[in-house]
Amino acid sequence: MGRILEQELNELKDRLLRLGAIVESQVDRSVKSLVERDSALAKLVIDSDHEVNALEVQIDEDCVRLLALRQPEAIDLRFVTTAMKIVTDLERMGDLAVDISERALELNEEPVLKPYIDIPRMARAASEMLRSALDAFVKKDSDAAWKVLERDDFVDELNKQIFRELLLFMIEDPHTISRAIRITYVSKYLERIADHATNIAEMVIYLVEGKIIRHLT
Amino acid sequence: MGRILEQELNELKDRLLRLGAIVESQVDRSVKSLVERDSALAKLVIDSDHEVNALEVQIDEDCVRLLALRQPEAIDLRFVTTAMKIVTDLERMGDLAVDISERALELNEEPVLKPYIDIPRMARAASEMLRSALDAFVKKDSDAAWKVLERDDFVDELNKQIFRELLLFMIEDPHTISRAIRITYVSKYLERIADHATNIAEMVIYLVEGKIIRHLT
Repeated sequence: MGRILEQELNELKDRLLRLGAIVESQVDRSVKSLVERDSALAKLVIDSDHEVNALEVQIDEDCVRLLALRQPEAIDLRFVTTAMKIVTDLERMGDLAVDISERALELNEEPVLKPYIDIPRMARAASEMLRSALDAFVKKDSDAAWKVLERDDFVDELNKQIFRELLLFMIEDPHTISRAIRITYVSKYLERIADHATNIAEMVIYLVEGKIIRHLT
Repeated sequence: MGRILEQELNELKDRLLRLGAIVESQVDRSVKSLVERDSALAKLVIDSDHEVNALEVQIDEDCVRLLALRQPEAIDLRFVTTAMKIVTDLERMGDLAVDISERALELNEEPVLKPYIDIPRMARAASEMLRSALDAFVKKDSDAAWKVLERDDFVDELNKQIFRELLLFMIEDPHTISRAIRITYVSKYLERIADHATNIAEMVIYLVEGKIIRHLT
């Protein structure tokens, strides 16, 4: 591999990790804005979405330029095309953090329905999955990617549990319905964030092992 | 452009259109299985998901091979990298049709809550958006892509309307809650299918006009 190509691939990795760190912080802060009823923080997440979007566009452009000028081969080529897909997943995770923040703004206007316990647990798991999946990608470490997939079941289970619990609230007291539904939405957004991390992990396994497992799990 | 490259790009377009047609039919049939309470049809959609997945993998591989062997330049290069992103959107739309079918299976087991009127309207709009966005891509027609974006507001509005209507049902009669929530999910899935079509349309505009509008609308 040429030195320029190697250097540009390293720059690409750095930018992807930077984007990943921003998105992770967006997810963490969106849930914090809900749990701590901090609407100013929710607005901050919403306002800084443009940062994620700008970085997404930049990484996409980096990839196209790299393909055009360096014509990478074999694993390097697949690394770049995979990066282009991953960046889309990251951007959509950022959008979901914005969605969480919007629900937080609405929920913070109303009385607390119940303390949030499982939502922060889900958020921590989803954030970790995101970090581990990206890390697995830049290190081309498929073992680490497999571990991300295992975590996804935990998040799905929490999502179902939250749904069942809120359903009981709604049936017992219809006054809670609109709040409870908003909380089920937050739970669903977190589940989708974990799904995006799972998509990334599946792409890493395909990149490294050549196995298509995205449609087996 | 060399004749082989031209031919391979045409094959890529054909495959993408074929995948699009399958996904469109999945969406239509999933909603039909709900409206006509046809659980056998819902199962058919769920079972045929592997067809969408296999075609996604194949198109992805076509794109990587095309990049490696033909080293397309300028607009052709961007066409291929965009196709790789679009194929992911199509596959996720297929997953959402499966989600709709799963909710249909559950809802078909219970008494009808109310006749479905807005859900089929949403489904028709989302299907049309999908077809138009893909068509705009293979024809590199950004005017057609802009029209897809306009339709998205209509789908978002219907989703909100369905939500408000079902909320009233739930508040009036808590027995309807679990069914009503499932219907709001179907509505949300259709909204997400329309969002994916919007993503495709935004990529077409970027491909043709070089304008990044995905983060302005």
